Amino acid sequence: MERGEGRTLLVISAPQHDAAAYHLSGFLAPDPVICLRAAGKKYLAVSALEYGRAEKEAPVDELVSFDELELVKLAEELKSGARAFAAAAANLIQRAGAVGSPVAVPSHFGVAYADELRARGLWVEPDGRLFTELRRVKTQEEISHIEEAQRAVEEACAHAVGILEEAEVSVDGTLRWRGEILTSEILRSEIDVELLRHGCTADEGTIAAGGAQAADPHESGHGPLSAGEAIIIDIFPRGLEGRYYADMTRTFVKGEPDQALQEMYDAVLEAQATALSMIRAGVNGRDVHDKVSDILHKRGYKTGKHDQRPGQPLTEGFFHGTGHGVGLEVHEAPRVSTADEELKAGDVVTVEPGLYEPEVGGVRIEDLIVVTEDGCRNLTNFPKEFRVG
Amino acid sequence: MERGEGRTLLVISAPQHDAAAYHLSGFLAPDPVICLRAAGKKYLAVSALEYGRAEKEAPVDELVSFDELELVKLAEELKSGARAFAAAAANLIQRAGAVGSPVAVPSHFGVAYADELRARGLWVEPDGRLFTELRRVKTQEEISHIEEAQRAVEEACAHAVGILEEAEVSVDGTLRWRGEILTSEILRSEIDVELLRHGCTADEGTIAAGGAQAADPHESGHGPLSAGEAIIIDIFPRGLEGRYYADMTRTFVKGEPDQALQEMYDAVLEAQATALSMIRAGVNGRDVHDKVSDILHKRGYKTGKHDQRPGQPLTEGFFHGTGHGVGLEVHEAPRVSTADEELKAGDVVTVEPGLYEPEVGGVRIEDLIVVTEDGCRNLTNFPKEFRVG
Repeated sequence: MERGEGRTLLVISAPQHDAAAYHLSGFLAPDPVICLRAAGKKYLAVSALEYGRAEKEAPVDELVSFDELELVKLAEELKSGARAFAAAAANLIQRAGAVGSPVAVPSHFGVAYADELRARGLWVEPDGRLFTELRRVKTQEEISHIEEAQRAVEEACAHAVGILEEAEVSVDGTLRWRGEILTSEILRSEIDVELLRHGCTADEGTIAAGGAQAADPHESGHGPLSAGEAIIIDIFPRGLEGRYYADMTRTFVKGEPDQALQEMYDAVLEAQATALSMIRAGVNGRDVHDKVSDILHKRGYKTGKHDQRPGQPLTEGFFHGTGHGVGLEVHEAPRVSTADEELKAGDVVTVEPGLYEPEVGGVRIEDLIVVTEDGCRNLTNFPKEFRVG
Repeated sequence: MERGEGRTLLVISAPQHDAAAYHLSGFLAPDPVICLRAAGKKYLAVSALEYGRAEKEAPVDELVSFDELELVKLAEELKSGARAFAAAAANLIQRAGAVGSPVAVPSHFGVAYADELRARGLWVEPDGRLFTELRRVKTQEEISHIEEAQRAVEEACAHAVGILEEAEVSVDGTLRWRGEILTSEILRSEIDVELLRHGCTADEGTIAAGGAQAADPHESGHGPLSAGEAIIIDIFPRGLEGRYYADMTRTFVKGEPDQALQEMYDAVLEAQATALSMIRAGVNGRDVHDKVSDILHKRGYKTGKHDQRPGQPLTEGFFHGTGHGVGLEVHEAPRVSTADEELKAGDVVTVEPGLYEPEVGGVRIEDLIVVTEDGCRNLTNFPKEFRVG
């Protein structure tokens, strides 16, 4: 029995931009489509432009064209594309004989669609959790797609390490590679090209940030890289064929780190190892996150758990979650964080404690794992060596 | 005076995935933020993780952290991330002194947010047109970003032409390049790598489709390419720095096209030239699309205008729009299609008639132009030669 069975589910959006639509329809398209599941049957409505391909590719029970639903006429009458889409969806729901029951939609379902459906007497019920849960536990096939992307991540990271190894250190400490100053931009571009060559796209970006920049977890990095500073490399591409993301972070230093940096690295490594050892089905993500926070606190770093003051964002120490689910989106359920969420077998999550000190730099170490009944299987196959020769 | 001045505008979403949020805040982030414009002031609320970077980068009047809005506490109370975000947005609206007036949101604003805001007494009004219009006419700076991406498109297309030129024709007609059968996948990968090397990412895909596949406008292409068949190359990447898209299509044939294919090419080329000559501020996109349809009809092809039967999708001839706006999204307002939309100076749109015949192949020729008071400026600088030596 499929999850959410029996309920009427509706998504209106472009599957290429909306994991809920792709997951419900199994069909990729760059423009909005209408995906409906009602009484155990899957319906998909697409434009003439997509119809031929959808006939071949879409694993649905009933394929309908926008023409059949009179979308153009509706758009003229209602003078609104959004209202017309909703009216067409209402026609489809009627056709599926599902008018009487509530229609579950994702939290991000467009309010303009919802207003029109409600004006037509339909009971639209946003249920973020239902749609989140639908995609949460991964099938073997989904895990294979994630692993394909993860292999590309590792190839790209190995390529980056090769560049750092090849790089020479200038008198002022900046790195030079193939006759040029080695910048974050060059390193990122090399990583992204390597990803493409392995069938992945870094459509959410890639981080290659050194020194003080690495102390800001969302800074993607710019300008010259130097010896002795921590360089965070965080790679999270999507497989072009498989559509699933992978995610891994390593932190490197070319040459010798100073003591403060080495201590940060050791603390993060210990916190990560402990988190990995705790994970199994039934464990609460909050407990894992708490434990990570306690380890880092004990080592003398600030953490959200111990040092957060109401109304004041913490910007040094450990101030993000321990991990997040990865799938058709790079950030999805479940979170391993302050949230009360029990892990399940089949969850694919990152484990990525980090420490950030503007004066010292940033360190983050991230693996991608599948939760199992008695532990976890690490999908990551890449060493955690800080120093690059 | 800024467009939409005086109205309260609200967007809650991840700017990296939502052009409305990026356009309103000017700040890039991968996770949801709250963007508000009220009484002429811009507000932005972000997580602790983004706060430091937002302080440096976000061009807003007031930056607020989620902590100040008590997001975590709200999430615990409401047991829903979506409801908590909306409650935090309600707090922000109160702080901005904008509680009494209607709050305009985009059509795609999440229904879960809207429901919570309405439950808290706010008047939430989806207004797709307002948000669409905000982004529609481009500034000089925006056009520069689009042109940067367009230059990368041309470099990548030239690279693809070079490959087709270098390719050899096997006895059975398939192309070989550097000792391998030349496939759509190889050509696409070569294009995408070239785009990356020129600072762009093909995050919406690239089309390199030949033969019968080219007769399906949304088929991205797979398998061997052959001499004598039309190969559609449609390149529409986003600039990594500038964030804006460009879009261009050319159709090529290696060797000799047969007469039916050459006639299709000539028809599309004539239709495009006529469309380009009609465009200027004040012209209705529908009239341009009508004229394109008439030209193709006169040449003996089916068109949506002349041959569409109610309830039956047309899948050969000319069955898509003549063009679409391009900006922070690859498809945005205005459309040059059956829709009644008057073009304005500063609109950046594609002009891309196409013909598709399963037995013959597909031809599409697409330029990107800026509408001006007395015509248009073509941002595309690439020849329209069908035959590749």
